[in-house]
Amino acid sequence: MAVVTDFMAEALSLAGQAMAAGEVPVGAIIVSPDGDIIARSENRMQRDNDATAHAEILAIRQAISVLGTSRLVGCDLWVTLEPCAMCAGAISHARIRRLYFAASDEKGGAVEHGPCLFNQPTIHHKPDLYGGISEAPAKQLLRTFFATKRG
Amino acid sequence: MAVVTDFMAEALSLAGQAMAAGEVPVGAIIVSPDGDIIARSENRMQRDNDATAHAEILAIRQAISVLGTSRLVGCDLWVTLEPCAMCAGAISHARIRRLYFAASDEKGGAVEHGPCLFNQPTIHHKPDLYGGISEAPAKQLLRTFFATKRG
Repeated sequence: MAVVTDFMAEALSLAGQAMAAGEVPVGAIIVSPDGDIIARSENRMQRDNDATAHAEILAIRQAISVLGTSRLVGCDLWVTLEPCAMCAGAISHARIRRLYFAASDEKGGAVEHGPCLFNQPTIHHKPDLYGGISEAPAKQLLRTFFATKRG
Repeated sequence: MAVVTDFMAEALSLAGQAMAAGEVPVGAIIVSPDGDIIARSENRMQRDNDATAHAEILAIRQAISVLGTSRLVGCDLWVTLEPCAMCAGAISHARIRRLYFAASDEKGGAVEHGPCLFNQPTIHHKPDLYGGISEAPAKQLLRTFFATKRG
């Protein structure tokens, strides 16, 4: 089983790939209960021409397909940016055990910001939350991307 | 262009199909700015073995594929149940113009209940909202389905 920090490094590497392809740099991986990476994905909104093609959604769909189970019980999701409401909702539906994220997202995040979805009494499943892991490199990637766009 | 009530009738028909297949009866359609139905979908969580395969998500993906555009600007979504946070988030990302829904969902809804997502200051796009359309038959379908399950 890879050590914990390797998982976010892998997600950051995927975020870097996304940036190289002109996408907002966000990467995600899903780790099985045995500690294996069963899904690797990155933001593909531009390439898939789909405003809902966020890294987390693609990773969840991929992991469901790999495991052949409707839900991802006991699986952990690592993502380089605080999930939005759509992705946080999908994480809850999929019964992700632990959610690790790097950069916080004041504008679009729905875990620590906005609706704080997992604190809502109507949420059916709440993963354990671990924010701020490798936050500096994740934020740096995003800053670099948006500076390029503005330049 | 079909009259407005026909659109929810179409979504209800899809919900009925879902129920016949053993799914929680929820149906959705998306109507283009010209008034054409460009996506028809129903809940497929059981059949696709995917906890995120809600009718709205499938309809949005279908419409994006049909139109070849990343977002669904000017399109309207009709769904037989108040959307959850995942679907409401996707509706916002896709820039749906108007959201029409039938039955309200006190337990899992995220439009009029729980996080009331479209009232959050961090939401980037809020559709016009029309709840309670054809609520009685939509609720009846859901009641019938859950009564069968309990029976």
